Amino acid sequence: MPASPPSRATALALDEQNPLRERRELFALPPGTVYLDGNSLGALPRCVPERLAHVVGEEWGRGLIASWNSADWIGLPRRVGDRIASLLGLPEGSVWVSDSTSVSLFKTMVAACRLRPERDVLVVETGTFPTDGYIAASVARMLDLELRWSDSARVEDALDERVALACLTHVDFRTGAMFDADAVTAAAHEAGSLMLWDLCHTAGAVPVDLVTADADFAVGCSYKYLNAGPGSPAFMYAAPRHHDVIDQPLSGWMGHARPFAMEVGYEPVEGVGRLASGTPPVLALSALDAALDVFEGVAPADLRATSLSLTDYFIELVDVRLPGAFEVLTPREHTRRGSQVSLRHENAYGVVQALIARGVVGDFRTPDIARFGFAPLYVTHADVYDAVDHLVDVMDGGEHDRAEYAVRNRVT
Amino acid sequence: MPASPPSRATALALDEQNPLRERRELFALPPGTVYLDGNSLGALPRCVPERLAHVVGEEWGRGLIASWNSADWIGLPRRVGDRIASLLGLPEGSVWVSDSTSVSLFKTMVAACRLRPERDVLVVETGTFPTDGYIAASVARMLDLELRWSDSARVEDALDERVALACLTHVDFRTGAMFDADAVTAAAHEAGSLMLWDLCHTAGAVPVDLVTADADFAVGCSYKYLNAGPGSPAFMYAAPRHHDVIDQPLSGWMGHARPFAMEVGYEPVEGVGRLASGTPPVLALSALDAALDVFEGVAPADLRATSLSLTDYFIELVDVRLPGAFEVLTPREHTRRGSQVSLRHENAYGVVQALIARGVVGDFRTPDIARFGFAPLYVTHADVYDAVDHLVDVMDGGEHDRAEYAVRNRVT
Repeated sequence: MPASPPSRATALALDEQNPLRERRELFALPPGTVYLDGNSLGALPRCVPERLAHVVGEEWGRGLIASWNSADWIGLPRRVGDRIASLLGLPEGSVWVSDSTSVSLFKTMVAACRLRPERDVLVVETGTFPTDGYIAASVARMLDLELRWSDSARVEDALDERVALACLTHVDFRTGAMFDADAVTAAAHEAGSLMLWDLCHTAGAVPVDLVTADADFAVGCSYKYLNAGPGSPAFMYAAPRHHDVIDQPLSGWMGHARPFAMEVGYEPVEGVGRLASGTPPVLALSALDAALDVFEGVAPADLRATSLSLTDYFIELVDVRLPGAFEVLTPREHTRRGSQVSLRHENAYGVVQALIARGVVGDFRTPDIARFGFAPLYVTHADVYDAVDHLVDVMDGGEHDRAEYAVRNRVT
Repeated sequence: MPASPPSRATALALDEQNPLRERRELFALPPGTVYLDGNSLGALPRCVPERLAHVVGEEWGRGLIASWNSADWIGLPRRVGDRIASLLGLPEGSVWVSDSTSVSLFKTMVAACRLRPERDVLVVETGTFPTDGYIAASVARMLDLELRWSDSARVEDALDERVALACLTHVDFRTGAMFDADAVTAAAHEAGSLMLWDLCHTAGAVPVDLVTADADFAVGCSYKYLNAGPGSPAFMYAAPRHHDVIDQPLSGWMGHARPFAMEVGYEPVEGVGRLASGTPPVLALSALDAALDVFEGVAPADLRATSLSLTDYFIELVDVRLPGAFEVLTPREHTRRGSQVSLRHENAYGVVQALIARGVVGDFRTPDIARFGFAPLYVTHADVYDAVDHLVDVMDGGEHDRAEYAVRNRVT
């Protein structure tokens, strides 16, 4: 043990200096819980229930079909997309929100590969979130491409003149390691390939400048750091230079130039709207629209600074108070770290469950990772201190090795 | 004019005999509105707001990530699917709910065509809802099939030994005409083809027995007669004989045999769950789950009898009170009629707008169709009487020819 053990007063002082400290009040966090799983499901913004109640009771219940116009339901995918674009520093009219991440990946992957018809390889990396790989395999099969798996540490080696598209997860869901979007996109372009970024573990926590990086497409989830609720729809970004040539396979009526002309032939609308497929999910889009309010006026630099301060502090406390107990999988270099910290332990599942029993919610990723997400808008340094305090007690008391944690449940 | 003009008392008497008359109270219909657009967006069931408030405030807000297990969010696509299966007379475990109608059509069309790899034609009919045709064209392109457009009146002529799949809309969205599901499915099977039914304008209003018909797949919308709210997800049905061989292209992680094992290779789960793609839309699925309560205990025969009584009465009143003013596009034979009545008029747009201004909500379908839907759970014969009363006044007063209705709005 160090000469002077870490003190909770330090945590409180760090919180006092945090420019985002008042944002936590915008969330309805349950009392007694330290919630470090916003990288899986973001906490509930207090403004969401009221907005949803209005959309359901007034817009749907009273406005009925007229609300497609009067409440501009029809404009939600683009309007909400523009708010996400603003948050991510992307141009207006370049983001569309409609379907799940898996479906959005399929649409953008096919669209991208069709822009390089003379090439026959689609690149993903071995650390990617599973659905990215599964969808890439399906796209490769349907477009008669080779699916090439690259090593996460050596993506450049997989890029050559045959590659139509490289699709990478910007922040690794297991380790929290982050790619250099500028460098990888440049390498992809140098090889003549297009670049698609999966921003699921990025958006709302880790600033990334896809305009400067010159990325072609991106897809990201809205139920993690964007706090839009379980199963909320994903967003898709397409660089404006591609808008008028996007040719995507889920060519539903909402992507038609004149959806209500009910024409027999499909003629895609101009602009990012051609990423649309079916009728927009109005309730989910409205929840997302409301949820984005918590980001109003937040400077991306503050978001990043708070995130790094929280993860730095967590790593420091684990180092000092639990030396040797865990392998810190997450990079210590700021430039390579997302907004989570992953600890390796042979009984990581038990560690996570024992913490949950104490009100500290992280999650487990197979086979041996305890994962802790630090949503910079609502996690405090005091939370971090308390979480590690509980972790010390768990490990000291051997709580993680309890028999009841030997059976793993379905979703953790 | 007839000797004894129709009387509203007749309508009230018909309502008195309606076995479903008490169901209307389950809906939050705005006062002063006659809502005949439930075939586009169903009315709000009163139980939905409370359920959504609970899901948002308690399950998401307090339960947070644990609700995937504790509130069984993960089971929603199948659990809600089973309720729809029960309503439609389909086997338990054969319906899955997750994505939009367009996306669901893509999944089931590809899956079906892949079951007939030696065949190279996909059949749709010219009266189909546009998105069905657009998605079919995309499927045909990706699987290297010929898209064959059949005449609605002569579908059998398009079926031959080259056809992998026929995809038809059971009830025509423009005219309300209904196919004979038994006969057409039998014809498709006789040709060795598979049969996919689009039930968007069927489910919740028109009973159809797909088990007896022996259909292979179906897709249907939940925001029309199933009243689940704007943009709510579609359902997919697959006949049990296909479950273990479904090979669908949106192979997201939720269709994996072990989604949380995070494996690199895709191995589909057994059963209907392999129609899954991404994370289920929990809020929308919960709204749908609640909305289905209004059907509890409703006999399909009563649903059909009420629907036919309403559409019969509407046609009769239009015939008697507005002879020659409109062409009734909807078949008069019960066996060929869905749950809507479509009237042709050269200024149908103005007719619909003038009615809306009077609180009678139908909708317009280009170029000349005024469409009226009769949701049997909440539309009354008194509504029908009042609607036609207003229609008489509109036509007598030339209200439909007002200049303000010359410009068409986006969604009607």
